[in-house]
Amino acid sequence: MASDSAMKPCDFVLFGTRGDLARRKLLPSLYQLDKAGLLHSQTRIVGVARQPLSQEEYLSVVSEALNTFVKETLCDETLVRFMARLVYVGLDFTDSEGYQALRDVVQEDHVMVNYFATPPAIYGTICGCLQANNLIQPDTRVVLEKPIGHDLASSMVINDQVAAYFEESQIYRIDHYLGKETVQNLVALRFANSLFASKWDNRTIDHVQITVAEEVGIEGRWDYFDKAGQMRDMIQNHLLQVLALVAMDPPVNLNADSIRDEKVKVIKSLRPINQENIYENTVRGQYTAGFLKGQPVPGYLEEEGANLDSNTETFAALRVDIDNWRWAGVPFYLRTGKRMPFKHSEIVVHFKNPPHNLYRDSYRQLPPNKLTIRLQPHEGVEIQMMNKVPGLDQTQRLQTTKLDLSFSDTFKNERIADAYERLLLECMLGNQALFVRRDEVEQAWKWCDSILDAWARSNEPPKSYPAGTWGPVASVALITRDGRSWEE
Amino acid sequence: MASDSAMKPCDFVLFGTRGDLARRKLLPSLYQLDKAGLLHSQTRIVGVARQPLSQEEYLSVVSEALNTFVKETLCDETLVRFMARLVYVGLDFTDSEGYQALRDVVQEDHVMVNYFATPPAIYGTICGCLQANNLIQPDTRVVLEKPIGHDLASSMVINDQVAAYFEESQIYRIDHYLGKETVQNLVALRFANSLFASKWDNRTIDHVQITVAEEVGIEGRWDYFDKAGQMRDMIQNHLLQVLALVAMDPPVNLNADSIRDEKVKVIKSLRPINQENIYENTVRGQYTAGFLKGQPVPGYLEEEGANLDSNTETFAALRVDIDNWRWAGVPFYLRTGKRMPFKHSEIVVHFKNPPHNLYRDSYRQLPPNKLTIRLQPHEGVEIQMMNKVPGLDQTQRLQTTKLDLSFSDTFKNERIADAYERLLLECMLGNQALFVRRDEVEQAWKWCDSILDAWARSNEPPKSYPAGTWGPVASVALITRDGRSWEE
Repeated sequence: MASDSAMKPCDFVLFGTRGDLARRKLLPSLYQLDKAGLLHSQTRIVGVARQPLSQEEYLSVVSEALNTFVKETLCDETLVRFMARLVYVGLDFTDSEGYQALRDVVQEDHVMVNYFATPPAIYGTICGCLQANNLIQPDTRVVLEKPIGHDLASSMVINDQVAAYFEESQIYRIDHYLGKETVQNLVALRFANSLFASKWDNRTIDHVQITVAEEVGIEGRWDYFDKAGQMRDMIQNHLLQVLALVAMDPPVNLNADSIRDEKVKVIKSLRPINQENIYENTVRGQYTAGFLKGQPVPGYLEEEGANLDSNTETFAALRVDIDNWRWAGVPFYLRTGKRMPFKHSEIVVHFKNPPHNLYRDSYRQLPPNKLTIRLQPHEGVEIQMMNKVPGLDQTQRLQTTKLDLSFSDTFKNERIADAYERLLLECMLGNQALFVRRDEVEQAWKWCDSILDAWARSNEPPKSYPAGTWGPVASVALITRDGRSWEE
Repeated sequence: MASDSAMKPCDFVLFGTRGDLARRKLLPSLYQLDKAGLLHSQTRIVGVARQPLSQEEYLSVVSEALNTFVKETLCDETLVRFMARLVYVGLDFTDSEGYQALRDVVQEDHVMVNYFATPPAIYGTICGCLQANNLIQPDTRVVLEKPIGHDLASSMVINDQVAAYFEESQIYRIDHYLGKETVQNLVALRFANSLFASKWDNRTIDHVQITVAEEVGIEGRWDYFDKAGQMRDMIQNHLLQVLALVAMDPPVNLNADSIRDEKVKVIKSLRPINQENIYENTVRGQYTAGFLKGQPVPGYLEEEGANLDSNTETFAALRVDIDNWRWAGVPFYLRTGKRMPFKHSEIVVHFKNPPHNLYRDSYRQLPPNKLTIRLQPHEGVEIQMMNKVPGLDQTQRLQTTKLDLSFSDTFKNERIADAYERLLLECMLGNQALFVRRDEVEQAWKWCDSILDAWARSNEPPKSYPAGTWGPVASVALITRDGRSWEE
């Protein structure tokens, strides 16, 4: 393997190997890494779950997952190699004695990477069992999936439990948005292009919009989602992480902690939203029955298992101010919801207008330059500019035109890797740059808790919006009040 | 006609109606304006030449020109209308009495637009004859084709001769580059886009390159060209006009004199090149025999009618400094030549690098952002940026990527008008913005004369370059000496 020189052999221990995440994302991503030659030849994948399974049964479990979720024809050569890496250990996650079987399997000279695709409530228990079985070495790593708690207090409990056994440098908190190509490209876009590098502040930028629109609804997980809501499920992690990358000061270098130092500074600078300013700065919504692509879909309170009293938001729009030197006066508008008309995530940076409008006789206001970073679908970058429309008109007709860089068109020969591939590779390589540090998580919770608390104390229920629309009308008011409007 | 309300009827008097320019450009452009409904219904085209021609003979002369040089199927309806506008007057340009026939033809309530597609030596004579026949009214206009002189002194003679009969506000000096869509778009690009408006100076721009490469050689006009050379034929007018539009300060408004005020300030700020700095800042070249698209072509001194002693430059490369606040330290590199590998004109603005290179471990120097304005062929605008290449590499691979705006793709429904269509329309409308003012011409000559003089006094003949190459090797040295390189 080309990569053997660069990496150490790992025992990648996958707690919850039969779960949804493992089947849909983790096992297919490990397969892709293997196919790309990015797994050390000696690296093994140790599936852990409660059920006793024979090696053959486990192989067929994995094989089924790959056949279902790898979006291309499987490569026989890779498959043979990949299957040979698999080991299964059946144990009760909470029963320390069962871990002896795991102990028998992992190798001392391998880096042990423990991926907890399990309920966070038992993260601490698993750590304790690993410790009790002498399975934690200085280079042992632990990968934590969200949600890490449902508020600051509960996240601190979980983080404390894990921290009792692992150093922060051993802990990899997943936010899969950080593995997306276009999110990683944000850093290059900002710091390798002087066109943006020197124009990234309140003198040149008017405002920023971050939209993460989902088409899906609750997908049968009403109970789970109802305890979370869009604020906990999307904003506290994905949207704030993206916001931090857009807004951070230039890091000292590209090392993990240099970047994370800057990100946490942004999150610390978010102006608190509380009972006093909750109405001006937030709108929460809940979808009612509507139509999506012509098909009727039920409302949130009509979904299976719904509790009719639920005030949980399936949509949230926020005006976020960053109280620092760079961003004073530049609002960031965040918007995320379920049952939107289509799946669509993007960051749009609106530049200020030129200081003077030379075209004022024809255009009371010129459309601004915009930089759009499309996260999904159709990952890419787009610049909106003004050009003169060719033609012999006497008043110069201008037109907004788009200079488009579609990743799939531009980088035709490069496969766009799934976010999890990148993240699994990074944790095996021991690079924490794309993982969320504890102080980031906690600062983000602190800021979100204040909003959640103000919503809870408010007498207003979420505003309703029909499924298949862009959220409640009030979210339009939130931004038009500032003389701006959401991207169409 | 939709346009009747906006414009007055004109008598467009075309001196030299049987010449090459009239046949190739002026008559086809007038036809296109008529087709587009941009000629007043009463506007007439009065062809003037020495030969006596019957109306029928003139119509067939024009018909032949349109059939040969209009690049599309002629529209019968337009043709009928257009032919009905035509009047022919045969006269000797230098014989005042002959102008009586012209006097009989033009109408008092029409704006008379006199287009001098004649040798400049007789501009003054024609003006005198017009005056003698009482043909000059306050709204009479005169359109002058280049070359207006071959140096400052001779241009002043011609300009004085015309100025004896016409006010500057009646004089329209053609530089057809100003009629090109992409050149007109320069103003919109610069002043309607904050991304550039606020970054257009020596803090953000490293240097600018302007290239006008011709594939053609002398085209049977050896004598004519040899008296001019590339400096007089291309740089004094086209390249300096483009440079002025790129470099000018924001004008007060978009009126003709506001823009020309700013352009002339740029030309006045050009650092003089003379005997003392001629070698560092200029390279002149002359092509020798070579190959173009696989075919052998003769050298300049082997062309028909060549004088073997000629030192006339068929190529020139200049480093131009603009000594003002905006551009101190930002060189403009100009390059133009005949018998280059292909026809290609563009402006490339090289932005400075970001203040600090975060990617220095992988890239000693980051490629800069570039804004390219393609004048021909394939008119358009292009931005070069850096993006991360998608993929799982450990060192972030960056790649220069191009965001492209092709005019013909973007403005599919708009015909790209020929430069002359725009210019003829403007002079009929009485808008001087796209014409060159006397002070611009004279400042440009003053600056060019100094270079021509230094070349004449130098003992070095032009450097030779084989036809079909990008000019003499010394032109590469001119720019690499500054640590930069020509656009490929």
